[in-house]
This record gives sequence, C-alpha cells and structure tokens, in this order.
Amino acid sequence: MMASICGQSPSGVQRHVILVCPEVPWNTGNIGRTCLGVGAHLHLIQPLGFSLNSRELKRAGLDYWSRVSVSVWENFDKFVETMAPKPREVAVFTKTGKTPYWKLPFSERLFLIFGSETCGLPEKILSRYSDATYSIPITDQIRCLNLSTAVGIALYESLRYVLKAQQDSNSR
Amino acid sequence: MMASICGQSPSGVQRHVILVCPEVPWNTGNIGRTCLGVGAHLHLIQPLGFSLNSRELKRAGLDYWSRVSVSVWENFDKFVETMAPKPREVAVFTKTGKTPYWKLPFSERLFLIFGSETCGLPEKILSRYSDATYSIPITDQIRCLNLSTAVGIALYESLRYVLKAQQDSNSR
Repeated sequence: MMASICGQSPSGVQRHVILVCPEVPWNTGNIGRTCLGVGAHLHLIQPLGFSLNSRELKRAGLDYWSRVSVSVWENFDKFVETMAPKPREVAVFTKTGKTPYWKLPFSERLFLIFGSETCGLPEKILSRYSDATYSIPITDQIRCLNLSTAVGIALYESLRYVLKAQQDSNSR
Repeated sequence: MMASICGQSPSGVQRHVILVCPEVPWNTGNIGRTCLGVGAHLHLIQPLGFSLNSRELKRAGLDYWSRVSVSVWENFDKFVETMAPKPREVAVFTKTGKTPYWKLPFSERLFLIFGSETCGLPEKILSRYSDATYSIPITDQIRCLNLSTAVGIALYESLRYVLKAQQDSNSR
C-alpha cells in the first residue's frame, strides 16, 4: 500500500493532471479515481463537455468522485496565472510529442497536460510549450489511446522513481 | 510512431492480456483499443458479463474493436492448456501482489493476467501463480484502479525496454 505521495507528503512530490476541455464524463471520472489513487490533483479547463453533476462522471469515479481534489478553471490562462508552472514542471501530452513519455522530467512539482478526446490540445498551448511535448508510442492501428488510459500511463511513469524509492525504504 | 511490436514483429516480443471473467463492456472495449495500440493479443475467459456484440463494447473500442486480436476461452484451464505459458511468462495482477509492477520479467512472450472488476481473480489462479503476483501501488483512498487503466499501465511497463530500444534504433 502506498501512502499519500502528494500534497502534504514528506517527499514534497506534487502531481497535477490538467484536462483541457474534456468531453467524456466517463474519462474524467476514471481519471479522478486514478488521481486519488496516487494523491494527484485534477484540474479541469472549461468548457467541459458535461456537467460536474453528471451521473456518468460519478459512476465512472465510483463513490470516489466526491473525494477527488479538483479545480475547475474558466480557461487555460487563468490556470497558468494562478499555478504559475515553471518550464521544467510542465509536460504536454500529444501524439506528435517530441520526447517519449519515459523521459519525463524529475521535477518535484509536475503538471501533466492533456487535450480533449476528439480535438486534442489547441495550437496555442502546443506552441507555448513546444519544448515540453511528450508522446506515448502507439502502433499505426489506432489514432490514440483512450484519454484515461494515457493519463494513467503518464501519471505512473512520472511517479516511478518516487514509488521505487518508497518501496526500497519500506523493504529496508 | 511505433511499428507493430508483437506477433510477427522481428523482435519476437509477444504480449498477451488475459481478462478473467470481465464484467464491464466499456473496460474490455478500451483494453482492446490499448492492445491494438501496442500489438498485443487479448484473451477473454468466460463467463463474460456482457455480449461480445454489445453496443458499449464497440463504442468503448470505437471503430477499432473489429480489428482487435482476441480469443475467447471457455474457462481458464482451456486457455492454459492451449497457450501453455511458462513460469517466467506469467504476471498475475492483484492488489496484494508480492512484486511491484516495475519488476515484471523481461520475457519475450508475456501473459498479463487480470481479474474481474468486482471479484478480482479466483483463489485457484492466485495460488497457482503465487510466485508471479504483481501489484500497482495505490494510496488507501481507493480500493483499486479501474481495470482498463491498470492494464494500460502494466502493458506499457512490460514493453518499456522494447519501446526504448526501438526509439534508440530510430534515432541512430
């Protein structure tokens, strides 16, 4: 069992998942569950393709949704103004990302940014963080992974070294 | 873009995902999409909690489902008899797994076995492979990750060294 690895944890590690204009409540609910499972904070950038009270959202997040640490932002700029991520603290996920996901930076505070299910990320965000684009390799058989699957892979990858260190210290 | 990394690929790497009695069509559909995305084969052990013609299954797998390489088995023993996995080729995922998921064996052929959404794996399978149980660490805030999220994390972890090698050879 992993103790909380975010927020108030002694390690100081903070993970933030940012969904820009997500459309499918099931995905956001499931991502909330994953965030809760690793102690990450979820940021939703409006407009959303569903109501935060939607039944699907809660069903996908099971009974967990009410406990997910979530912020809703009017737009991406408001999120940036307030959270003020530094360059090494941002990883933008896109199919054409320059760097494979296993080379994520080892930052204590890390913001993992994902676009919407059908439109991906707007060009404005991609060009703003053009040095921090990442991809998860896929065959040419699919256009992309499901959003909640991609977030799970990226989030756990970003925590790999933390989890390993915790396990090493537990087994001592 | 990753070329097919399974089956007929020159690397000889084969990945198999086994879902024992899955219940939620959305999860199986999404897992099929992930399998297609890495060239893995999907095995479904009956009874299933849904029809393979169900609308939800196809919707979750988008238009991909018809192309997923999938086998349906009457029961787990039939799967084992036919596929005959060797000890180092099996990784059973369970909350109480002894080994963290980042220590998966480096086998060319690997079978990743997952239980159902509500019941997990039957004791018979867990004790049969008691030396090959793996877990994905989670906080105590959730009971488990969503099945399709867990499969995505485990599958990509099992292919980490293959993907890295492909990327190294591509960048040469």
